[in-house]
Amino acid sequence: MAEYRAPLQDMRFLLNEVFNAPERWASMPRTAEVTPDLVDAILEEGGKIAENLFLPLNRSGDEEECQFNDGEVTTPSGFKDAYKTYAEGGWTGLGGNPEYGGQGMPKMLTVLVEEMMYAGNTSLTLYPVLSAGAALAIDTHASEELKQTYLPKLYDGTWACSMCLTEPHCGTDLGILRTKAEPQADGSYKLTGTKIFITGGEHDLTENIFHLVLAKLPDAPPGPKGISLFLVSKYLVNEDGSLGERNPVTCGSIEHKMGIKGSATCVMNFDGATGYLVGEPNRGLACMFTMMNYERLSIGLQGVGLGDISYQSAVAYAKDRLQSRSPAGPQNKDKAADPIIVHPDVRRMLLTQRAFNEGGRAFACYVGAQLDTVKFSEDDAEKKRAADLVALLTPVAKAFFTDTGLEACIIGQQVFGGHGYVREWGMEQFVRDARIAQIYEGTNGIQALDLAGRKVAGSGGKLAEPYFEDVRAWVASQQGNAAMGEFLAPLTAATDKLEETTRWLLDNAGNDPFAVGAASCDYLHLFGYAAYAWMWARIASAALAAEGGASADFYAGKLGTARFYMQRLLPRHLALAASVMAGSETLMALNEAQF
Amino acid sequence: MAEYRAPLQDMRFLLNEVFNAPERWASMPRTAEVTPDLVDAILEEGGKIAENLFLPLNRSGDEEECQFNDGEVTTPSGFKDAYKTYAEGGWTGLGGNPEYGGQGMPKMLTVLVEEMMYAGNTSLTLYPVLSAGAALAIDTHASEELKQTYLPKLYDGTWACSMCLTEPHCGTDLGILRTKAEPQADGSYKLTGTKIFITGGEHDLTENIFHLVLAKLPDAPPGPKGISLFLVSKYLVNEDGSLGERNPVTCGSIEHKMGIKGSATCVMNFDGATGYLVGEPNRGLACMFTMMNYERLSIGLQGVGLGDISYQSAVAYAKDRLQSRSPAGPQNKDKAADPIIVHPDVRRMLLTQRAFNEGGRAFACYVGAQLDTVKFSEDDAEKKRAADLVALLTPVAKAFFTDTGLEACIIGQQVFGGHGYVREWGMEQFVRDARIAQIYEGTNGIQALDLAGRKVAGSGGKLAEPYFEDVRAWVASQQGNAAMGEFLAPLTAATDKLEETTRWLLDNAGNDPFAVGAASCDYLHLFGYAAYAWMWARIASAALAAEGGASADFYAGKLGTARFYMQRLLPRHLALAASVMAGSETLMALNEAQF
Repeated sequence: MAEYRAPLQDMRFLLNEVFNAPERWASMPRTAEVTPDLVDAILEEGGKIAENLFLPLNRSGDEEECQFNDGEVTTPSGFKDAYKTYAEGGWTGLGGNPEYGGQGMPKMLTVLVEEMMYAGNTSLTLYPVLSAGAALAIDTHASEELKQTYLPKLYDGTWACSMCLTEPHCGTDLGILRTKAEPQADGSYKLTGTKIFITGGEHDLTENIFHLVLAKLPDAPPGPKGISLFLVSKYLVNEDGSLGERNPVTCGSIEHKMGIKGSATCVMNFDGATGYLVGEPNRGLACMFTMMNYERLSIGLQGVGLGDISYQSAVAYAKDRLQSRSPAGPQNKDKAADPIIVHPDVRRMLLTQRAFNEGGRAFACYVGAQLDTVKFSEDDAEKKRAADLVALLTPVAKAFFTDTGLEACIIGQQVFGGHGYVREWGMEQFVRDARIAQIYEGTNGIQALDLAGRKVAGSGGKLAEPYFEDVRAWVASQQGNAAMGEFLAPLTAATDKLEETTRWLLDNAGNDPFAVGAASCDYLHLFGYAAYAWMWARIASAALAAEGGASADFYAGKLGTARFYMQRLLPRHLALAASVMAGSETLMALNEAQF
Repeated sequence: MAEYRAPLQDMRFLLNEVFNAPERWASMPRTAEVTPDLVDAILEEGGKIAENLFLPLNRSGDEEECQFNDGEVTTPSGFKDAYKTYAEGGWTGLGGNPEYGGQGMPKMLTVLVEEMMYAGNTSLTLYPVLSAGAALAIDTHASEELKQTYLPKLYDGTWACSMCLTEPHCGTDLGILRTKAEPQADGSYKLTGTKIFITGGEHDLTENIFHLVLAKLPDAPPGPKGISLFLVSKYLVNEDGSLGERNPVTCGSIEHKMGIKGSATCVMNFDGATGYLVGEPNRGLACMFTMMNYERLSIGLQGVGLGDISYQSAVAYAKDRLQSRSPAGPQNKDKAADPIIVHPDVRRMLLTQRAFNEGGRAFACYVGAQLDTVKFSEDDAEKKRAADLVALLTPVAKAFFTDTGLEACIIGQQVFGGHGYVREWGMEQFVRDARIAQIYEGTNGIQALDLAGRKVAGSGGKLAEPYFEDVRAWVASQQGNAAMGEFLAPLTAATDKLEETTRWLLDNAGNDPFAVGAASCDYLHLFGYAAYAWMWARIASAALAAEGGASADFYAGKLGTARFYMQRLLPRHLALAASVMAGSETLMALNEAQF
């Protein structure tokens, strides 16, 4: 059965010992009040919500699924009450702007909270996470009037928000979308069109739902530069803030999916629905991209959270399930068999899950710290540098968290043998729920193109420079530490290989139009393995520096997992680099008829 | 939507051009009648069944699932009629012993037929495949009386058979099973116990079902050497062959699973059920192992078949779905976007699927040919050598087919973007259905231990020798062929690396009790990648030798995919070899509390 305890010790270790977050927060005026005590309290309470409120509804929500009836969507039993408790606790506004009722917490903290919620119940978590992303777009781009009207209700969870991008004929290629927005005399717009795959487009958790909708103005130029962003509310809002008449935006149906069955994935029909422009006309994609880095990092955490609950459940099973004997002879002589955790191949599975989960959690903190610098720092050069790092690393985080998250969930299921395939045990749901995170919020193929194309090749390699500088500087800082040699050598080798491959990519991108696309997926994975090597080296360094004491097992586990990662998983980067540098020829040689 | 055309051209190419099967069959008396015309007719008819009879029931079967009601199991609508048509066509006895009504077809042919059926409808295919495996065990080990009574009914599909091994507390570790068999005065036995995860333990497809059951005699020694095999029929069989009274073997419930929902996975209760001994007392596991090599190869094909339907569906979608422009500029100027097959990363996905599927199909033919030599050859030395190859390669086939099959299905789903996650489109079912093949019939972890431990280390490397001899001899035979250089170089490098890693394994297995288990999974994958390199080199050689003509695209596609495999997938073997040779230390260093 699923077992989950919020990984609070690891989270505190990352914030306090690996990344020195309290010092950093204390140094910026707008995060000066984020003290270690406050952070501890938030993590602890968040952990309780994930364990005691969200997790108990996870299996039942999967079996029950969302129900659709004549435009209304009913979420699974218990979701509504759990959401209410969550909202009343202030969690829906945790990272929100304090000027409109948000809690103003840094991203480095909210990523950890979100990870726990995804672990407990991904379907339920998606509703508030989407609202949080939408709030960011509104806060950054909407008029003061829209902000005053919508943000406080979003932060306190009274209302929710969905994002409406995809249409039946276009997902990745939003330039060809067809939803129209016609200007009205009063400054509003009438929106007409159909959007699909809208997470939380309709549900029963909140009294109102509004939508951030990409659409085209009548005179819009073709392609991505002709897209504008609109806010469309299910109920129009009266001047006093109360809800008015029903706006003609309706849910036509919900999808029956592989997983996240408690999350309503809606077809949304806009039939002349009243909407309000957010940001400048024809700049809608740019508005959406403002929030993408925040949102993609969050969605990536779905992979980490599900990987973690799968790991914790698999460890519990591996310690409990008796089957066969240790290769070194019976360990459990009074029983007919040993617990399967004695077997090296079972340990390989568990340590693979763990190395991915904890490497991902650390990387989320690292990227979160850059986002916080962009948002809270008062030093422009520092902000610019952090923004470059965010641009570079966000696609890595989203895609690598979710690809390794799926691998972790599949492995956890495998540890359970036949029971892993039976729904009742819960392990297979983690696989099904994790799978979508590789697809939505920009498929991982699109993330890889964003990294290799727009970010690396598009900047002539410039965006990658601060990353390599940071790694090299950190490695240099460790040189006096003899115990770190076993971690620094593989980290340096992988970083060298990533740099070599980056140069190869830059050399080839100009000559071969297919070079970037041919390299992209393997290049992103290579980046991910190299980045996790840095994370694990940093974790090892902090663990070596710690005074074990009562936590000796904790630190020994960190060092052991770091060694496992370097020796048993990091070698994958060699295959990826070779594949990238094989070029595009074998991909493009076949004509369509030859497939 | 799912698209499937039986890959008949590829199958004929493999049999006739790559493996010279007709010549081989003509040389052995018991396969002399297996002519190319007969083979063509069987493949063509088999393809029609997969496409027109099995596939139309695949999605509906998944949604409807098997239903359990008071001991009775109802299969999804249409399954019963489809099974009847299949049985009446003689397919249930295709590989069976002609002395009892089987068709006597070689394994090299039946693997291809089974692959198509799995592609069309895995759940439905499992019923007759299980019966075919059971028939082999009966034919090899049962008394003449049991054979006369049960085999003809199994071959003509009137009855079906399940295999009952797993119990709630034991799956891998059958030595600790508890089901008891008590001898009766009339030579029969009374069986008492509970078996779980019994595929096809109860259903409505046949008038009778019998079970091959592992159980312990009262005086049995402990452990795996105290297990006997029994035949237990749902209805007792009268002397005239008609069905008699109901035997107390009943289905207690069925599992609700991630996939293969049209296949009944049963809890079977034996309450003093009458059974008959098959083979010698306490030799039941050996009897089961006789059929394992046959059965494991078949179950592996589930991965190949599902990978293929996923590939074919993804190719069709990639040619149809318009989204974005080619990196080389618009290819489809009169439309708003190009088909996504223009994108190198989409091609990477499709070619990865294809390289796995067709490499696996070729490897299944190669292993099937060895099984046929064991069964039909009249040369003892040749039989012995082939049996060694079968022992070595069967775990590779089962695990690598199914691991790469899952990867292929996940990739195919990814090509569909959001639609891949929606049940209606069918792609996610292939993922769910493929997942079980890595777990049942011995988990892939157990296959890896079988390969690295029992087969390679256990024989001091002797079992691996004929494999390396065959590869080296084949490479030598190609040396005059300059066009083959680009394929022989990576094949030789991967084979060298596999030999080096094998030596490492042999050197370490004696000193470190954990060396085999620590290496096993990565070693099996390394073996798989090296073996597929051989298959792709053989395919390339046959394609180069062919007179293109009307099939020029077919052969060009083969060469292109072979190049892709060598340059873009085979590099993975480098990472696997490095991981194996990192040894067991990082796996075993942590104590249980540190997980």
